[in-house]
Amino acid sequence: MNQVLAEVADEVAEHIGRGKVADYIPALASVDPHQFGMAVALPDGTCYGVGDWLAPFSMQSISKLFTLSLALASDDSAVWARVGREPSGSAFNSLVQLEYENGLPRNPFINAGALVVTDHLAGHVGDAADAVLRFLRTESGNDAITYDEAVVESEAAHSQRNLALAHFLSSYGNLHGDPHSIVDQYIRHCAVAISCRDLALAGLFLARQGTLRDGSRVLSGRQAKRINAVMLTCGTYDAAGEFAYRVGLPGKSGVGGGILAICPGRCSIAVWGPGLDERGNSVAGVAALDQFTTTTGWSVF
Amino acid sequence: MNQVLAEVADEVAEHIGRGKVADYIPALASVDPHQFGMAVALPDGTCYGVGDWLAPFSMQSISKLFTLSLALASDDSAVWARVGREPSGSAFNSLVQLEYENGLPRNPFINAGALVVTDHLAGHVGDAADAVLRFLRTESGNDAITYDEAVVESEAAHSQRNLALAHFLSSYGNLHGDPHSIVDQYIRHCAVAISCRDLALAGLFLARQGTLRDGSRVLSGRQAKRINAVMLTCGTYDAAGEFAYRVGLPGKSGVGGGILAICPGRCSIAVWGPGLDERGNSVAGVAALDQFTTTTGWSVF
Amino acid sequence: MNQVLAEVADEVAEHIGRGKVADYIPALASVDPHQFGMAVALPDGTCYGVGDWLAPFSMQSISKLFTLSLALASDDSAVWARVGREPSGSAFNSLVQLEYENGLPRNPFINAGALVVTDHLAGHVGDAADAVLRFLRTESGNDAITYDEAVVESEAAHSQRNLALAHFLSSYGNLHGDPHSIVDQYIRHCAVAISCRDLALAGLFLARQGTLRDGSRVLSGRQAKRINAVMLTCGTYDAAGEFAYRVGLPGKSGVGGGILAICPGRCSIAVWGPGLDERGNSVAGVAALDQFTTTTGWSVF
Amino acid sequence: MNQVLAEVADEVAEHIGRGKVADYIPALASVDPHQFGMAVALPDGTCYGVGDWLAPFSMQSISKLFTLSLALASDDSAVWARVGREPSGSAFNSLVQLEYENGLPRNPFINAGALVVTDHLAGHVGDAADAVLRFLRTESGNDAITYDEAVVESEAAHSQRNLALAHFLSSYGNLHGDPHSIVDQYIRHCAVAISCRDLALAGLFLARQGTLRDGSRVLSGRQAKRINAVMLTCGTYDAAGEFAYRVGLPGKSGVGGGILAICPGRCSIAVWGPGLDERGNSVAGVAALDQFTTTTGWSVF
Repeated sequence: MNQVLAEVADEVAEHIGRGKVADYIPALASVDPHQFGMAVALPDGTCYGVGDWLAPFSMQSISKLFTLSLALASDDSAVWARVGREPSGSAFNSLVQLEYENGLPRNPFINAGALVVTDHLAGHVGDAADAVLRFLRTESGNDAITYDEAVVESEAAHSQRNLALAHFLSSYGNLHGDPHSIVDQYIRHCAVAISCRDLALAGLFLARQGTLRDGSRVLSGRQAKRINAVMLTCGTYDAAGEFAYRVGLPGKSGVGGGILAICPGRCSIAVWGPGLDERGNSVAGVAALDQFTTTTGWSVF
Repeated sequence: MNQVLAEVADEVAEHIGRGKVADYIPALASVDPHQFGMAVALPDGTCYGVGDWLAPFSMQSISKLFTLSLALASDDSAVWARVGREPSGSAFNSLVQLEYENGLPRNPFINAGALVVTDHLAGHVGDAADAVLRFLRTESGNDAITYDEAVVESEAAHSQRNLALAHFLSSYGNLHGDPHSIVDQYIRHCAVAISCRDLALAGLFLARQGTLRDGSRVLSGRQAKRINAVMLTCGTYDAAGEFAYRVGLPGKSGVGGGILAICPGRCSIAVWGPGLDERGNSVAGVAALDQFTTTTGWSVF
Repeated sequence: MNQVLAEVADEVAEHIGRGKVADYIPALASVDPHQFGMAVALPDGTCYGVGDWLAPFSMQSISKLFTLSLALASDDSAVWARVGREPSGSAFNSLVQLEYENGLPRNPFINAGALVVTDHLAGHVGDAADAVLRFLRTESGNDAITYDEAVVESEAAHSQRNLALAHFLSSYGNLHGDPHSIVDQYIRHCAVAISCRDLALAGLFLARQGTLRDGSRVLSGRQAKRINAVMLTCGTYDAAGEFAYRVGLPGKSGVGGGILAICPGRCSIAVWGPGLDERGNSVAGVAALDQFTTTTGWSVF
Repeated sequence: MNQVLAEVADEVAEHIGRGKVADYIPALASVDPHQFGMAVALPDGTCYGVGDWLAPFSMQSISKLFTLSLALASDDSAVWARVGREPSGSAFNSLVQLEYENGLPRNPFINAGALVVTDHLAGHVGDAADAVLRFLRTESGNDAITYDEAVVESEAAHSQRNLALAHFLSSYGNLHGDPHSIVDQYIRHCAVAISCRDLALAGLFLARQGTLRDGSRVLSGRQAKRINAVMLTCGTYDAAGEFAYRVGLPGKSGVGGGILAICPGRCSIAVWGPGLDERGNSVAGVAALDQFTTTTGWSVF
C-alpha cells in the first residue's frame, strides 16, 4: 500500500496547487493551496499515509456523513421521513428545490438536508456537534481533534443563507429545534479540524459494514451499504455523476479540500488538497482517487 | 356616486360570501365572510360608502403600498437600486425568483420586495410600521386606527417563511437591518386594522398626483403616476394581468380581503370582502371594481 | 402635434444609434441602426410624423397584437381558454413556463401564446398571416404593405426553437394545426414590413374603442379596452413593468425596433429605432414615448 | 442460481400485478400486468431464468443503454462533449433543464440525452435503431428479435414532445440530423421487443468489462466500468438514489417494465414486470433485484 500511495502521489504532483481555495470565509481563504495528503486505512485498523497526511484541515461537509451515520443509528426511518435520497441537480445551498418540493430536502448532503439531520440528531443527543466530535475522537483514537474556532467564528459571521434555510425548513415543520441553535451546531461540526489519518480511521466503519474500532456495531451491514449508496449518488455536490464516472467509489467531499472515499470491504481513503474545482471538489483529491482506483482496480464497478 | 355605489352593491350581492377566507393564521380565519364594504373618495376629500364601509379589517399587503410611497418620498433612486419593477410570475412569498436573480426582488409588492422597502424605510425613520400608521391616521383624519394585536401575535407565530426571506436577502447584502427586527416591523404594518372609508382617504394622494390632505406633496406628480403603474402591473399577486383586464385600474390587494384602487384624477376606491379567490384577491372586491368601471367607464384604458 | 413630435425628436436625438440591432438572423442584423421615425394618428385618421416615419421596417412581434385582435374578433372566449393573460417573468421564447403550467402559455405575446393565437386564427380564416396582411393594408390604406421575403427566409432558417414550441404545444393538445404550417404563418406575419405611418393607422382602432377606418367595429369597446390592458401588462417582453413605469401607455414592441403604443381615446403612436436594449425593446423608441407622455401628460396614470 | 431465482420469485410474488402499466400509448396500456420474468446471465454465457423470462416485452428506455454503448465505442469524447453525466433531478422528458443549461442534456438517459446519443450514432452508422437491433441479435444469439410495429406506430402518433425536444436541441446546435428522422430512429430502438433471457445476454458485456460474446471488445474495461457508473447515478429516472439505496447495482429501467442490472464481474440480470411505481420503474422488478442482492450479497457497496 505504501508503494501504491507513492505512485499516486507521483501522478498527482502536477495537480497540487491547482484549483481555487474556498474563499467565502476568510478562515478558509488563507489556507496554503500547495498542500496534499492521503491516508488509507485497512479493515484491521492499519493506516498508511503520504504527504501532509497528518496535518489537520477543515472537515466542512464531510462532517455531514458522520451526522447522518449517528442519526441513522438512533432512528433510521424517522430520518428518511424527513429527507430524501435523490441527487439534487442544484447547488448545495439552493432553496429552490426545497420550495418546489415542499420543504423535503432531496438528500442528507445538501445543506438543507444536513440541517434536518443535525436537527434530528440534536433531538436525540442534545448537541449534534459534540456527538460528532466524540465519535471522531473515539474512532481515530485521537483526543486532540477539536473545532477550529477561527472557522467557527468566520462561518457564524456568514451564516445568513443557512439561517434562511433553517427558517424555511421550520416554515414547513421540518426543523424542530430553534433555527439559530441548529445552525450553530451545524457550523461547529463542519468546523472540526482533522487529518487524513484520523479521517480515514473515523470512516473505516463504512468499509467494515458498520463495525466500530472496538468491534461493536454502530450500524447494521445493510445500513452501512446504504449509506455508501447515498454517498455515491449524492456525496460530491453536483458532480456525483462525474465522481462515480472517474473514481467509481462512494465519496463525500468538503470545501476544505478533503474527500473521504469508501472501498467496501477493502479500505477507507482520506485525501486532502485545498484547491477546488468549479463544483467545489478538491482537484488534487479527485485526481488522487482516480489514480488510486486505476492502480488498484478497486472501483466498485 | 351614492347611486353608483348602490348599483354596484346590488350587482355584487351574489358574490358576497364566496371564496375562501385566508386561513394561514387563526386571527384571519375567524373573520365572518359575509361582509362587504366599499368607499369612494373624491379629490376634494368627499367620501361615499356602502355596506360595511366603516368596519375595520386587516390591511395586510395593502400596507406595502404605503411603505413604498413613504420610502420613495425619502429616496427614490436608492429604493429602485434594491428592488425591481417587474411582475414576478411566481407566488408572493416565493424564494425561487430571489435565488435566480441574486437577491433582487422583482417588485416592491412581493414579500421579499416589501421586506427590502421596509428595511429602507426603517433606515430613514426608525420604525417603518409606526411611520405607516402615522400616515394612515393623518390622511384619514382618524387617530383611532391602530394595529390589531391578535393579528400581530398570530403572524409572529407563523413568521418562519418571512424570516427565511429576510435572512436570504441579508445573505445577498440586500437587507441592512436585523432580519428579526425588519420582519417584526413588516408584520406590524400589515396588521393595521382600517375601514374602507379610512383606506380610500389614505390612498387619495395617488389619485391626486401626490398631494396630501393638507395640500402639501408627499410625492411628485410623476412619482405618483409611476406608483400607479407599478400597482397596475404588480399589485394583485399573480393576477395583475387578469385584474387589469377586468377592472382596468391600478390596484393593491391584501389577504384580509381589501383592495385599494386608484382612478387617476377622479377618485380612490377601497373595497372589502373577506372571501378570496385562488390567487388571494377578494372575490366580491374584484367583482365590485369590475362593475364600478363598467358603470362609470372610468377604466384607464 | 407636429411641434410635440419635433420636441420629442430633439430630445431623443442622443439615443438614436444606441443599443444593439437584433442579430439572431442576418436579415435583421444588416439594418442601419441610425434611423428613427415616429408617427401619431388621431381618432379622425389624421396622421403626423417625424424622421423616418415613412420607411418600412420589420414588424416582428408587433404583429402579435393584430393576430390577437383578429382572433378575439372571431371567438373571444375560445382564445382565452387556450392562453392566459398574465405577465410571464420569463424570456419571450422560454419553454420553462409552458412546462410548469401544462402547455397553457401565460399570455398571447410570448412566442408560445402567439403560436396558439395564430393557430386559432388559422382555424377560422385559413391563413393567419394573410388575414393580418389584409387588415394592415385596409386600415392603413396602403396596399403596398407586404412580407419582407428576405426576413421570411432568414427566420425559416432559424425556426428550430419555434418549431420546438409548436410541437410542445401540440403535445399538450394546445395546437390544432400542423406545427410546421403554424410556424410558417407565424414567421410570415412577423415578417411584414411596415412604416410608422401605416402602423399607427392600422392600430388606431385600439384608441377608438374597436372602431375601424370605415366606421364598422372589429371589436366591442370593452374588448378594445381589454386588449389595451393586456398590452400594458404583457406587451414589452420582460420589461412591461418598466415600460408602464416610464411611459405609462399600453404598448407592443418588436425586435425590429418598432413599438406601437395606444393612448385610449386620444391617439395611436408608432415609433421605430433599430437599436434594442437588453430586454429587446427599442432604446430610442422607449425614450421617445417617455418624452411624449411627459410632454403631453397623456399617460393613462 | 436456479435456487436463488426461485427464492426471489417466491418473495416477489406479492408484488406482481402491483403498480400501474404505462398508459401514455395504447400499445403499452394493453399489456397484462400479471406477468413477471427474471434472467441471470453469468460471464461464461450460461443463462438462468424464472417465470415469463422468455416472453418478449417492450424495451423502451433500456435501449438507451445500448445506443450509448455503441456511440461510445465509435467516439467516446465526442459523445461526452454533447451530453453530461449528472443526475437530472427532473422528469425524464423535461425541457426545463435543457433550457437552463443551454441545450446540453444532463445525461444520456433522459430523453434529450438519448436523442443526442441517437443523433451521434446515426452520424456514424446511418440508422441508429438498426445498429442497436443488430447488436441485440448478435449478443443474444436470437435473430428473431425485432421491432414491435404496434408500439412504433403508437409512439409515432404521440411523438410531439420528443419532436419538441429534438427541435429544441437543434436550436442549440446539439442535434445534427433531421429532427423527425432522429425521433423516428429513437422511437424504433425503444420499440424493440425482447425477452429477459435475450436482454441479460445482450447486456453481459457490461459485466464482462466490455468483452462481447465472441471474445472481442466493444468497449475498454475502463469504458465499461464508466457506463456502469453512469447507470448507477442516472439509470432509473428520478429514482436513481432510491435504486442505489435499495438494490445497490447499476441498472437501467424502461416504462415497458423491464430493468437491466449489472453485477460487475459476476452477472447481468434482466427483470420484467409491467406494473410501474410512480417514478416509472417496475414495482416487481425493483423488489426482485432488492431481494436478489440481499440473498446473494452482490451489491456493489
